[in-house]
Amino acid sequence: MKTIDVCLSPELIHLFDLKGKLVVIVDILRATSCMTTGMAHGVKAIRPFADQAACREMKKQNYFLAGERNGIKVEDFDLGNSPFDYMQEEVKGNKVAVTTTNGTVAIEKSAEADEIVIGSFLNITAVAEYLKNQDKDVIVFCAGWKGKVNLEDSLFAGALVAKLKDDFESACDAPLFAQAAFEYTEASLLEAVKNSSHAKRLNGMNIHEDIEFCMKLDEYKVVPVIRDGEITLSN
Amino acid sequence: MKTIDVCLSPELIHLFDLKGKLVVIVDILRATSCMTTGMAHGVKAIRPFADQAACREMKKQNYFLAGERNGIKVEDFDLGNSPFDYMQEEVKGNKVAVTTTNGTVAIEKSAEADEIVIGSFLNITAVAEYLKNQDKDVIVFCAGWKGKVNLEDSLFAGALVAKLKDDFESACDAPLFAQAAFEYTEASLLEAVKNSSHAKRLNGMNIHEDIEFCMKLDEYKVVPVIRDGEITLSN
Repeated sequence: MKTIDVCLSPELIHLFDLKGKLVVIVDILRATSCMTTGMAHGVKAIRPFADQAACREMKKQNYFLAGERNGIKVEDFDLGNSPFDYMQEEVKGNKVAVTTTNGTVAIEKSAEADEIVIGSFLNITAVAEYLKNQDKDVIVFCAGWKGKVNLEDSLFAGALVAKLKDDFESACDAPLFAQAAFEYTEASLLEAVKNSSHAKRLNGMNIHEDIEFCMKLDEYKVVPVIRDGEITLSN
Repeated sequence: MKTIDVCLSPELIHLFDLKGKLVVIVDILRATSCMTTGMAHGVKAIRPFADQAACREMKKQNYFLAGERNGIKVEDFDLGNSPFDYMQEEVKGNKVAVTTTNGTVAIEKSAEADEIVIGSFLNITAVAEYLKNQDKDVIVFCAGWKGKVNLEDSLFAGALVAKLKDDFESACDAPLFAQAAFEYTEASLLEAVKNSSHAKRLNGMNIHEDIEFCMKLDEYKVVPVIRDGEITLSN
């Protein structure tokens, strides 16, 4: 049987052997939710950058620039990090260069993986079905918050493990732990995440609507993957 | 209100500021369960060593030697790492020098803390009551398994957070996550831990009885603390 493992923080990723594996990147608030939304709304491709200056350079190649640092939009960029920014008509058919605090760091740390998939609650069932059809062990890689474990990414990992329990066995304890926390929280998922310290930290920035949107299940059926350094659709 | 935080792996401890904090070390299978058992059965003091050779040196000072590497007793040592070893009559009133794979590493990494307490399911209520009476923020430090998150230490962290919910607020998301997993698992705690990958890894070593013992709640009322590098009783 294929195995599934969960990495709860980028600070733990060196303990996982990514070679030959399929890695699911998770940064629910809000990088991977934005990427999913963008791809579902017709963005042509999204190129992630850990470095803000390198991201800015892409303007010359007619990329839209998107990004935040510590939850705040970079001043001269076109888009912030709200999923609603990615629904704008003018972005459709164009490419976006994005930099975020945690999400792009996780993507850069996954370079050794065989394949990288973008996961969010917005496309969780589509991602789960995609994973079932690949012949690869899976590592769910939570972006966390500045190295620390956060609730929304961890609960997504648990939700994905629960969806895949008949097709994958846990490679270690973290999937069992995350699944238990998800099962306990499932009936009040939005409320739990609203009360998390991460959400409270972001609450001062008026992202109440973003959180509600990012916690919606199966809003989209797209499965964004990374090919040649850019996020594109799997099919 | 005082705060409580949870560090799920020694690989994350650098993200926590331990200064002025009370750290609870957790290595349920089996270091902190052994330490709790030893102190409850009249061991005079326990000195932890990350280094096996340094531990062996303590024989000259009439310490009993205890320890394992990768779950197996060190050949020329007096005690292994079963809590039952610490109940032996000849150990009573004596000092023990111990080295373990994960537990002593966690203790060494907690050197900056204001106070270090040894926690296990065997003394969880005693530890909780002790923490309520101290005027300090708490960090529950899970020893994990070779840097990875393990189920039994994480569930203990969640159980302790649940017991302290009226007296401490969560400093971050990890306490909320661990508490949710514990609440879901509470009714079948032993079964969940038996099915964990860590326990399965140890199962080949005939530690079935050890696991059942280590998962017993409130077998003892002792609160072992570290003073001058040795584990002793708090009162």
